Amino acid sequence: MAGTRVDGRVERGNHTRRLVLRRTMDIASVEGLEGLSLGRIANELGLSKSGVFALFGSKEELQLATVRAAGAVFAKTVVGPVQDQPPGVGRLLSLCSHWLRYSRERVFPGGCFFYGAAAEFASRSGAVHDAVAAAHRDWAAYVERTVEEARAAGELRPDTGPGRLAFELIALLEHANLLSLLHGAQDAYDLAASAVVARLRAAAAEPDSVPDALPC
Amino acid sequence: MAGTRVDGRVERGNHTRRLVLRRTMDIASVEGLEGLSLGRIANELGLSKSGVFALFGSKEELQLATVRAAGAVFAKTVVGPVQDQPPGVGRLLSLCSHWLRYSRERVFPGGCFFYGAAAEFASRSGAVHDAVAAAHRDWAAYVERTVEEARAAGELRPDTGPGRLAFELIALLEHANLLSLLHGAQDAYDLAASAVVARLRAAAAEPDSVPDALPC
Repeated sequence: MAGTRVDGRVERGNHTRRLVLRRTMDIASVEGLEGLSLGRIANELGLSKSGVFALFGSKEELQLATVRAAGAVFAKTVVGPVQDQPPGVGRLLSLCSHWLRYSRERVFPGGCFFYGAAAEFASRSGAVHDAVAAAHRDWAAYVERTVEEARAAGELRPDTGPGRLAFELIALLEHANLLSLLHGAQDAYDLAASAVVARLRAAAAEPDSVPDALPC
Repeated sequence: MAGTRVDGRVERGNHTRRLVLRRTMDIASVEGLEGLSLGRIANELGLSKSGVFALFGSKEELQLATVRAAGAVFAKTVVGPVQDQPPGVGRLLSLCSHWLRYSRERVFPGGCFFYGAAAEFASRSGAVHDAVAAAHRDWAAYVERTVEEARAAGELRPDTGPGRLAFELIALLEHANLLSLLHGAQDAYDLAASAVVARLRAAAAEPDSVPDALPC
């Protein structure tokens, strides 16, 4: 019985944690991670401030937990769907396509969570900056590896620089995200999609094998 | 005599205005435009809060004046130096080169002022959002016009899309700005410079006429 009671408490704690983080991800994506506070969240969700405090401990811990939770959403939405695809240009196209959809469909109401967080913390220091920078670096490294694998599979020209191509692709994706948020226009996604296709066609060992448009 | 007194007061007001805006541009570039407040600025510069209030009226007015002042710095630093160059690929290269230098040399301590401001206000509405979005749109239109003029001068292939090429160039520049701030590394500028050169070479009517690297 004592075990059941503890389990119940842990279960409720986990449930509250998920509730809080779902809300903090949404707030942070629109207003920034600095917009988070334990009191505000408790108030908005009708929880006691001491309960939220017990779960997260400090504003910084809440910010860090929010970054981790957003990382899990990003991984599931953008990276997950392409994991089983064989290495190659098709997988790169699919990865970019999923990223654009993740931004366009506002999985987070403020567009790409990590774009906003990176811009917000770019000039700061501390644990939250470090967590955001690490997430950004992991993503760039993943894109770079995907390029390397496509090259190793013989689908990209041997002189393709993975670091530079990853830099270029991410630049195009993030710029579309910014313009769509800033101007409320969706044509930036079309510009980015056609630029991604053209860039990969220029790098492809067999340009004619690259489709005219991004998948879906 | 009365005229002299008024002139002196206007002169002092203009001087204080410039002092305040120099400081607010720096603060906003690092902490964001939301980091500005009349009281904080008065305190930091040893001015009376009522004096700063008399000059700017409200936090929003202070933010808008800061955006206008940053626009003037941007125009002078990035656009001014290329104004007298003849239309063509050389002018586009020079424009990108000046932008990268403006970011790298931290004309604003938080990197490109408008990158940070755009990311901060991307998901908001109101007068400050509108001013930042307009500045961003003006810059994109300027780059697009510079592409069009290069094409009209016969230096870019006739099928070059000015809107897309401008989108791509700005994406590369802004991504370098973000990565250099986020990771404290300067190699992002080299990646952007080589990507800009490669992109313009691919679009050039005579690719061999495009230099291997950006000017200075």
